[in-house]
Order: sequence, then structure tokens, then C-alpha cells
Amino acid sequence: PTPTTYSLDSEIDGLAIVKLPGAKGGRGYFIASSLQEIVERLRALVNRGLVSDVSKVIIQEYLVGVTAYFHYFYSPVLERLEITGADIRYESDVDGLRRIPIEKLKEIGVEPTFTVVGNIPVVLRESLLPTVYSYGEKFVNKTKEVLPPGVVGPFCLEGVVDRDANIKIFEFSGRIVAGTNLYVNGSPYTYLYWDEPMSVGRRIAREIRLAVEKNRLSSVIT
Amino acid sequence: PTPTTYSLDSEIDGLAIVKLPGAKGGRGYFIASSLQEIVERLRALVNRGLVSDVSKVIIQEYLVGVTAYFHYFYSPVLERLEITGADIRYESDVDGLRRIPIEKLKEIGVEPTFTVVGNIPVVLRESLLPTVYSYGEKFVNKTKEVLPPGVVGPFCLEGVVDRDANIKIFEFSGRIVAGTNLYVNGSPYTYLYWDEPMSVGRRIAREIRLAVEKNRLSSVIT
Amino acid sequence: PTPTTYSLDSEIDGLAIVKLPGAKGGRGYFIASSLQEIVERLRALVNRGLVSDVSKVIIQEYLVGVTAYFHYFYSPVLERLEITGADIRYESDVDGLRRIPIEKLKEIGVEPTFTVVGNIPVVLRESLLPTVYSYGEKFVNKTKEVLPPGVVGPFCLEGVVDRDANIKIFEFSGRIVAGTNLYVNGSPYTYLYWDEPMSVGRRIAREIRLAVEKNRLSSVIT
Repeated sequence: PTPTTYSLDSEIDGLAIVKLPGAKGGRGYFIASSLQEIVERLRALVNRGLVSDVSKVIIQEYLVGVTAYFHYFYSPVLERLEITGADIRYESDVDGLRRIPIEKLKEIGVEPTFTVVGNIPVVLRESLLPTVYSYGEKFVNKTKEVLPPGVVGPFCLEGVVDRDANIKIFEFSGRIVAGTNLYVNGSPYTYLYWDEPMSVGRRIAREIRLAVEKNRLSSVIT
Repeated sequence: PTPTTYSLDSEIDGLAIVKLPGAKGGRGYFIASSLQEIVERLRALVNRGLVSDVSKVIIQEYLVGVTAYFHYFYSPVLERLEITGADIRYESDVDGLRRIPIEKLKEIGVEPTFTVVGNIPVVLRESLLPTVYSYGEKFVNKTKEVLPPGVVGPFCLEGVVDRDANIKIFEFSGRIVAGTNLYVNGSPYTYLYWDEPMSVGRRIAREIRLAVEKNRLSSVIT
Repeated sequence: PTPTTYSLDSEIDGLAIVKLPGAKGGRGYFIASSLQEIVERLRALVNRGLVSDVSKVIIQEYLVGVTAYFHYFYSPVLERLEITGADIRYESDVDGLRRIPIEKLKEIGVEPTFTVVGNIPVVLRESLLPTVYSYGEKFVNKTKEVLPPGVVGPFCLEGVVDRDANIKIFEFSGRIVAGTNLYVNGSPYTYLYWDEPMSVGRRIAREIRLAVEKNRLSSVIT
């Protein structure tokens, strides 16, 4: 499941996040609660020359809940998907604004930004794991289908978990994500698979070695 | 020390948390600041058929401060209480609401919910450890007294630490708590006791082995 | 880079944090948005006898962003500065206030306090590391210059990372900081240096042993 995408003539339900062209690293977004507000703010941005091509603006359902980044490793050699960890992003200045009294926040009128500063470790509620695992499997299968041979090795799904423990995925990273830096000496999950310290780097090396041993090197390189 | 429990005819001081019958997993609570407000909200819930037995509603002092979950292991064989770790819960949507600008939060009128999504590791300020340890000891001694042979192995006390570093305990878990999933390969505390990776599972196995070696198996099984 | 310090007759820009004499452990601060507000609040504190010597009040630029504590180890024997970890403080009641609905927060009129309760691990965004490293080097060089032989072993720089990923340092600790308790069994960074579990305690012991082996003990003791 993914967030709904809106066009500029569909009414939005609840909150929407509006991503401006070139939005990157937590900048260039705003949150709005009506189509009218979006149109007004975009018009102002166009007038100030900050947005030139409104057709490149992306308007998405704003998912209310908490973010979580799920790390996976897909092993073609073992034909196995592994959950290797999870993290939360530490972001400026949104994660610091709570330190400021509400009245002061209003006075200075800061809107939160989401510049990534670091990653914080988290383990997931066990009852979420089957869903997290199945989303990873769907991702692997879909990439096999549309982009054979499909994803090999590490990837990450980025989601929001809502108050009913439903998970929606708003983004993926088809690479070693920064959050895995937390687990240079292994994560609580990799210990259950390997019983030895297992970073992503070592896991990739292990996959290659296993592939060589089984004469299946072609299954892990493209 | 534990939070004060109020009845429906005692005036409350500060904030109160009202737990509805069947409240579970972070849902079915509300926070109120006066007896009148509690009565009004309960009346509305009864009228809407959401609460049938008001006598089962629990009204407690709302502890202002930060929550922390203290993990322990009581070893009857070593006659030793061990602090094995601590964690913070990652909860939806309360831990995500700060991402939404205050004005928008007001517009959508969301009240925070506390659905557990995961656990975040924390080490405790050293000066809190004697208190945390003594609360664990009191728990062990009390269970020995009222429910012999008392608690054996892992348990958890769930507390709030206030701005004066006072700790009140609002709940306990007499089992392996989810937060220990963080420490599958050991916690900063278990390393000081064992100098080897020590999960709760291994700790239980170790206790049984020690008991067998000392012919004291009956002290760890009930 | 460090925050600007204001005097009682300079107008402030944005927010200022006012540290009262004897402020400690997260208490005895307030945040203000104008010189007039500072003067009024200080006058009230003086009248109530809570502040006697206004000349000891420190007024600093309030850095909007997220805090981070950078752990270092300077090795005179290896002539090497090591980044050994990073942490975030878990503070009461500021980190708990988000659990209370905004309307209730206003009713009880709590101003956040910053009593340290624990430390949460974090790894830093990789692109911040060169800056964090260079700040550590500057600190080492400056202490060599003004207080020879300069810092030896563990120290900590305490900073705020703003929305543009700029880092300002507001404090240092020339000792083993509490946040290193997270890394009793090593941090993601120490693994990259040592490939074995390396606490600060072991790192100090290692430095002494290396110094003895190289006949350079005098370079690590003062």
C-alpha cells in the first residue's frame, strides 16, 4: 500500500504533502489541508520565481503516523529475503522544535524542515514483522518482473505506520542505505540469521563467496 | 512510588489519564484536566454506547515526564538482581505528530494515540541506577512475599522520570518484554555482568544450567 | 563555530537562551525572543530572590536545530584523532511533553525542562563527518596551544545541527561523557578502527599499553 497521489483538480482528504520540483534531503515540501491552500501557496511560489513548472509538483496524501525505514537483503543464492534492521531518521529542525515552548514557536513562525542529520536504531513490534516481510517480498517479486533479474542484495523500504498499525510505503532505496551504518557490528536481526557480526558490507562479500562456491556468480552480478 | 488513583468523586490535581475498559496497546485513553471534564467525556462515551460500565474506568494521576522501560533479570541461583537494559517505546501517531505544523495539527484535531510500533535503545543516567535497582529489588521482595517463590528470571518495570529525576512506576511486565529484542547480542549492561553476548534467551538457559550444576533446579521452576 | 553571546544592552536576533547563575543539569534556563522580555523576566526573578547577581546571567543565541553529542578520542601515541560515537540526550520533561495534547499543555502551562534521563544512540549522516572531524581536530590543536600538552584521550563536543546541516558547538566535556555508556561493547565507529569491542575504558588502557610499548608513557600522562 502506498499514499494516494492527488492532481491539482482533485479535492484532498485530510492533509496533503506537496513536493516542489527539486525537493531533496528534507527541503522543498509543505503540508496543506485543502486544495485551495495548495493553489494559493503554489501561486505565491510561482510569483516569487521559486517554482517555474507547476506540472512537476507532486501532491500526495500526508500519512499521519510514525516513519520507519526497513532494511532488507535479498539473496539470490539462498533464495531468501532477510530483514536486516530498521531505523528512524534524526532530522533538523523538526526533531529539535519540541525543545522550544509553543508560544515561542509561534512567534518565530518556523515551519519544520526534515534535513537528515543521523539515524537512530529501532526494533519493530513483532506483530509488524510479517507485514514488513511480505512488503519486502512483493518488492523483490515486482522488480524481478519489471526489471529482471530484479533486486540483488541490500534495499530499503521507507514507510509510515499509522495508529492502527497499518503500514504504507512512500519510498524505496535500491542500495545500501545510511541507516545500516548503525549495524556495522550486526543488528538484532542479523544475529538471528548469522550468529556472528554481519554488516551489509560483509553480507555482500558473503553472498559473493557463497555464489562462487556454488558456481552461481552470474546470479549476483548484472 | 506509583501514580495516584482517583475515584469519580475526588477532585484531580494537574492532569489525569482516564483508561476506558478494554484499553489496550495504546488505545482507549484520554487525558483530562478536571473532574468535570472527565464526567462530561465519560457521559458522552456512555451515550454513544462506547462505554457501558463506568465503574471499570480507571482514573490515574497523569505523570508529566518521560517514559522509560527498565529490564531486569532475577537470578534465584545467584541470588542476584541484574539490570539488563532499558528502552523507550516508539509509538504511533504520537511520535509522528511533531512532524506536522502546529496550525495543521489544530485543523485536523488529532488526539495522540500510543500504538506501539517499536523500541528504541537508551542507557540511563548513572545517578538514576541506584533508584532503578532498588525498585527492582522491592518488586522481587514483594512478589516473594505475596506470591512465593516470587518472580524468577526476566521482568520489566515501566516508569516515568520527571523533571526532578524522580521515578514513578505505572506498570510491570512479568515476562520477556519486547524491548529486549534490542539486545539480542547483549546490552551495555549485560556486557558488564557477563563479558559475552547475552540475550534474555541465553540468560534463561544460563540460569537453568547454573541451577542444574548446583542441584538447585527447583529454585528456578515453579 | 559557536553561538553568539549577547550582553544586556544588545538587541537579540531570533531567539535567545538565558542561563541563570547555577543553571545545571537542564534546569535554570529560559528561552526569550526579545531583549525586553529578558529584562522583564530577569527583573521578576530578582524580585522573587531567585537571582541575585544579574551580571552572572549568560545570554546566548538560541540555536534552532537538533542537538548531537560527538564523542572523540585523541591518541598522542598514534597521533590520531578518532570519532568514537555520537548520542542524543533523553530529557525530562521536554521529551515527554509531546505525549500531552496541545490544548492540555496550554492549560497546565508547563515550560519544558531538560533534565537528563539517559542517552540514545545515533549514527551521523556521512556528509557531516568531515565537519565533525575537523571540529575535533581544531579542539585538539587549540588545547595543545593554550594548555599544553593539550587534551589526551576522550572528550566530547556538544553541538546543534541546523536545517542547512551547519553545525555549531555550544559546549565541550573534557572527559568520558555519559553517552559513551551506550558503547560498552563498541560503537559502529570504533569497530571501523579496531575490529574488536572497544569501550572508552578499554581504549584508555590500550593507549597506555601502546605508550608503554613505545616508551612514550610521558606523552599520555600529565
